[in-house]
Amino acid sequence: MTAENQKTVHVDLGDRSYDILIGPGLIAKAGREIVSRLKGRKVAVITDEHVAPHYLQPLAQSLEEQGIAIHPLTLPAGEKTKSFGHLISVTDHILASKIERNDAVIALGGGVIGDLTGFAAGIARRGTRFIQIPTSLLAQVDSSVGGKTGINSPHGKNLIGVFHQPDLVLADTDVLNTLSEREFRAGYAEVAKYGLIDKPDFFEWLERNWRDVFSGGPSRIEAIAISCQAKADVVAKDERENGLRALLNLGHTFGHALEAATQYDSSRLVHGEGVAIGMALAHQFSARMNLASPDLARRVEKHLIDVGLPISMGQIPGELPPAEVLMEAITQDKKVKGGKLTFILTRGLGQSFVADDVPASEVLSFLRDKRG
Amino acid sequence: MTAENQKTVHVDLGDRSYDILIGPGLIAKAGREIVSRLKGRKVAVITDEHVAPHYLQPLAQSLEEQGIAIHPLTLPAGEKTKSFGHLISVTDHILASKIERNDAVIALGGGVIGDLTGFAAGIARRGTRFIQIPTSLLAQVDSSVGGKTGINSPHGKNLIGVFHQPDLVLADTDVLNTLSEREFRAGYAEVAKYGLIDKPDFFEWLERNWRDVFSGGPSRIEAIAISCQAKADVVAKDERENGLRALLNLGHTFGHALEAATQYDSSRLVHGEGVAIGMALAHQFSARMNLASPDLARRVEKHLIDVGLPISMGQIPGELPPAEVLMEAITQDKKVKGGKLTFILTRGLGQSFVADDVPASEVLSFLRDKRG
Ligand SMILES: NC(=O)c1ccc[n+]([C@@H]2O[C@H](COP(=O)([O-])OP(=O)(O)OC[C@H]3O[C@@H](n4cnc5c(N)ncnc54)[C@H](O)[C@@H]3O)[C@@H](O)[C@H]2O)c1
Ligand SMILES: NC(=O)c1ccc[n+]([C@@H]2O[C@H](COP(=O)([O-])OP(=O)(O)OC[C@H]3O[C@@H](n4cnc5c(N)ncnc54)[C@H](O)[C@@H]3O)[C@@H](O)[C@H]2O)c1
Ligand SMILES: [Zn+2]
Ligand SMILES: [Zn+2]
Repeated sequence: MTAENQKTVHVDLGDRSYDILIGPGLIAKAGREIVSRLKGRKVAVITDEHVAPHYLQPLAQSLEEQGIAIHPLTLPAGEKTKSFGHLISVTDHILASKIERNDAVIALGGGVIGDLTGFAAGIARRGTRFIQIPTSLLAQVDSSVGGKTGINSPHGKNLIGVFHQPDLVLADTDVLNTLSEREFRAGYAEVAKYGLIDKPDFFEWLERNWRDVFSGGPSRIEAIAISCQAKADVVAKDERENGLRALLNLGHTFGHALEAATQYDSSRLVHGEGVAIGMALAHQFSARMNLASPDLARRVEKHLIDVGLPISMGQIPGELPPAEVLMEAITQDKKVKGGKLTFILTRGLGQSFVADDVPASEVLSFLRDKRG
Repeated sequence: MTAENQKTVHVDLGDRSYDILIGPGLIAKAGREIVSRLKGRKVAVITDEHVAPHYLQPLAQSLEEQGIAIHPLTLPAGEKTKSFGHLISVTDHILASKIERNDAVIALGGGVIGDLTGFAAGIARRGTRFIQIPTSLLAQVDSSVGGKTGINSPHGKNLIGVFHQPDLVLADTDVLNTLSEREFRAGYAEVAKYGLIDKPDFFEWLERNWRDVFSGGPSRIEAIAISCQAKADVVAKDERENGLRALLNLGHTFGHALEAATQYDSSRLVHGEGVAIGMALAHQFSARMNLASPDLARRVEKHLIDVGLPISMGQIPGELPPAEVLMEAITQDKKVKGGKLTFILTRGLGQSFVADDVPASEVLSFLRDKRG
């Protein structure tokens, strides 16, 4: 509970810069951290029905002890909450609570609550202060960093939103203890991803220390801080996603196709599981294209298997559509130029790169083989 | 129809800079102006039922001649269209039309269509290119410049939106000929406002040339260009409205209170009429506070009367609420600190300033006198 095992990652975005605090007990300390950074004395807190029973009361108490009035709103849990309907509710709640320039809106939850709340904060009064308290591992290492907010459309996921940077992110590493094992693992896929993109030492460290990350030892804080720093570095160089951020999509092209193929039915596949399979496939495909060794692909697979993540399409329960349909999902996601696709591939451990000349025909025959 | 009587105002916002072209026949030239600035070859055009019958077909033809495919959507006219419901329709239309990074969304209409469409463009794919073709005088001199977009909430006007700068503004001065006289006059109140804020010469020029502005002579282009330039200068210095833009609210504090008092019922009062009355009141109040002379107030009133704008609350049809209720609307709009209000007042012709210590009690007794 001391600040010794607390880490700070600074996201450098000029006058939109902010800190990510990472460590145990941060919800209990939230009042103090926020009061020192906020001029106003009022916050709206948006959370979901899974998170509220555990953490809304402790957060409220911590804020109220510092004289900050709270206006809570609890929404249903799950991806469907990222809709226009709930956006309207949250925006209305912010305005009804008379949150103004110096006050703030807090997202207390996973990526769903973070994305939705950030969007509502971004449009209420054309931009209201926003604080993220991410409670899932995925939200702590990925969605709470970078300012991308949004909701889903019938035309596709995350197609509607704004860039709205938070003023502060509080990642309380203790709250991950109530997260389901499956959700923790799914978030871990993104942690491993940062190693595979360009941090071979971090990946090796994860191979040795993942048990401590899962059980909540000191490695957990370390792993989250390194992940946040990795994402923050990319975001600082490419705030509005004009190119550099592409590497963050390692495993995501295959992953998104699988999520679409399973109709975003989280009982079959959650995002991080799709990313894990996608990273395994990206490494296998890199080997097939003679870019990297088959041994590397096997090493990556082994680590994902160790932590309990899936690595092949066969592990997804239920029927998958034929390779041609998966291919269609991939070409919808990406642009095909003269039969060529852009993919994140690798030349070695932690040596990912943007390959923009991948023959669509090769991807299709690879998918045919792998789908079995 | 030559480019000689066409003017360009450049809005200087770093990598978000853009041009405002002002002149006759710009809808017919839109295709050429847009094709030279747009990589994509597809646009969504959002307009309203009053504007569409006149200008949608000419615009479509001009775009199609340049090989640009158009996806039009016509909405009901009127302030009620600035709602979440229509925001959803427009966003959906943009996504269904597969408007992507290099394509654009065009607003063809008054401030309502501009504000709504700019907001939808700002959130579709977290920011889509946006072109304004303002067709009302108010939109040409005010709402299309500056990047403020948004919709109304039950909690207040324009409370939900984003800053999203256009890539180009085409102000076709001919289209104002189909605008109703009343709407033209309302827009003219904002033109006069720029003079009263800090351009005494422009106000004097308007006193001499307003007939030519109304009848569509060369002074119209001149007046619109000067107004756009005035707003562009302020916006360039204060893009996200942190202070400087305040002067643009000359006449608007009283005006907003009157709009609220008439329930935004445009049959009783349109925005520009509220602004005209508000500017008259601001000059009268400045005289009452011994800041400026009563002669100046009379001079301003005379010009507003000349062009056919109202200058007093008594001219609003129907019953107005008591001064106390108007005062409440004012203090909701502004923040009251220790009984003091912030108002835009004046020290002389074109010498407006931000007064942040106006006693609320003085404003109330002034309103009591003026309400009669
Ligand atoms: N904005 C970005 O940059 C970005 C990046 C990646 C993902 N995302 C988005 O994030 C979302 C996925 O995030 P997620 O995986 O956190 O989903 P989520 O918010 O649905 O959380 C997963 C589940 O865990 C529950 N939960 C969260 N914290 C808990 C806790 N501490 N204890 C118990 N239960 C808890 C939630 O209620 C939910 O049921 C997707 O919508 C995705 O699009 C956004
Ligand atoms: N974004 C900003 O900075 C800003 C600034 C000022 C005002 N506004 C907003 O602008 C809106 C008011 O704009 P407005 O006065 O243009 O209202 P409007 O868009 O409702 O237009 C007024 C009327 O004129 C019609 N019309 C427009 N052009 C026409 C033409 N050429 N011929 C015939 N009819 C035409 C419209 O259909 C409508 O009936 C308000 O919602 C206000 O909040 C925004
Ligand atoms: Zn991901
Ligand atoms: Zn106005």
